[in-house]
Amino acid sequence: MISKAKIKQIKALQVKKYRKQEQCFVIEGTKSVQELLGSDFDVLWLAGTDRFLEQNESSLNNRTMEIVSATEEELSAAGSFQTNDGALALARMKPNITFSLTEEEYALVLDDIRDPGNLGTIIRTADWYGIEHIIASEQTADCYNPKVLSATMGSFCRVTIYYTDLEPYLAAARKPIYGTFLEGTDIHQLKFNGGGLIVIGNEANGISHTIEKMVTQKITIPRYGKAESLNAAIATGIILDAVRSQK
Amino acid sequence: MISKAKIKQIKALQVKKYRKQEQCFVIEGTKSVQELLGSDFDVLWLAGTDRFLEQNESSLNNRTMEIVSATEEELSAAGSFQTNDGALALARMKPNITFSLTEEEYALVLDDIRDPGNLGTIIRTADWYGIEHIIASEQTADCYNPKVLSATMGSFCRVTIYYTDLEPYLAAARKPIYGTFLEGTDIHQLKFNGGGLIVIGNEANGISHTIEKMVTQKITIPRYGKAESLNAAIATGIILDAVRSQK
Repeated sequence: MISKAKIKQIKALQVKKYRKQEQCFVIEGTKSVQELLGSDFDVLWLAGTDRFLEQNESSLNNRTMEIVSATEEELSAAGSFQTNDGALALARMKPNITFSLTEEEYALVLDDIRDPGNLGTIIRTADWYGIEHIIASEQTADCYNPKVLSATMGSFCRVTIYYTDLEPYLAAARKPIYGTFLEGTDIHQLKFNGGGLIVIGNEANGISHTIEKMVTQKITIPRYGKAESLNAAIATGIILDAVRSQK
Repeated sequence: MISKAKIKQIKALQVKKYRKQEQCFVIEGTKSVQELLGSDFDVLWLAGTDRFLEQNESSLNNRTMEIVSATEEELSAAGSFQTNDGALALARMKPNITFSLTEEEYALVLDDIRDPGNLGTIIRTADWYGIEHIIASEQTADCYNPKVLSATMGSFCRVTIYYTDLEPYLAAARKPIYGTFLEGTDIHQLKFNGGGLIVIGNEANGISHTIEKMVTQKITIPRYGKAESLNAAIATGIILDAVRSQK
């Protein structure tokens, strides 16, 4: 049974302010918790159905933490998901520190992605294309938001995000900076090699003027119909596919 | 001012059952209503801010319908959006009838896309790539759901969806049927020409077994990282980009 104190903690951690204060976050659902157990995240405690606890015995034995047996109803009531038939866990956030990129590496730069679903889908798509690092503006949605984590489908374990002020970051970066605009070079005509930073703009306003000035290569996804723009996560997928398929 | 009767109608039309009964749907937000006015949808009535009514005078004069002046607060309170600073309109659904596809045409086939946001994003992406027709299984989300319409960003006016039982539809189709699987041919190695139907599978289960048997060409989006799968709308975007960029 999940204690009242734990339920209170889980509910509080749905709010960003409290997550920041506690430096903890909640992971829900069988698949996400399994990915968490296989990752280098520090897991503080876990609640799972008897079935989950049995099926994941070996990965649970590899860790030292409190384990609670819970019913599906308890898990669903405690968390933010409508239903949860497997497990829920509390883990420690990783510190928000910069990373070094290898010379050939491509990384994403998110210029104010506000929608949690979009951010989660971008992280999942990055993971599909082997992108390990994302640099996000401070206005970008919080990657420990339950909706973001859910949309990543477990990819949050393999993609590291660093939140920072993009302007000084890009000014110091010694890599090509790609950004999508209507008047850029067709992504299928460009040669992508040698690594780079790919800037994805805000859902409503695109790439901000400050960041636009720092873009060294404007790119365009060719349009054949009449939609004014593409969703930010869709654009990310199409660009990463173009980058990788040229390798 | 929006009358109480109209507010009641708007609220009721958030429910699929009532939409089906009335054969009407609600469109919210400046951009979507503007697209609606420029489309061949039959608009029954419209509520807009004085600013919206002034700025869209010419397209409003082209139509015969009741027009109501409303404040931003009234529009937001009446509709399903958190805020609406422009307009809201009631329009008549189009009949769910089949369409003929030209020989060279590509169309999407949706095998149970359940998430309204995904369906809306797929419609928007289809419109970007000049796809005009979508065939959807009866279990696919309703395209007149407010969340779907909102996610299309106006593209619902240019893409026609036909809901039907996919099995007999595909059995009668005389076109190549593409479907994404882990073990298909790399989309970048295939020659897409001469039109075809592109099947997009359900978010959790992919393409169903019944439909899988009818696929004439299995295709694969190459993976470079570790995510197990791509979001359905992301996969749609990447496939359509591959289809169009080979033209």
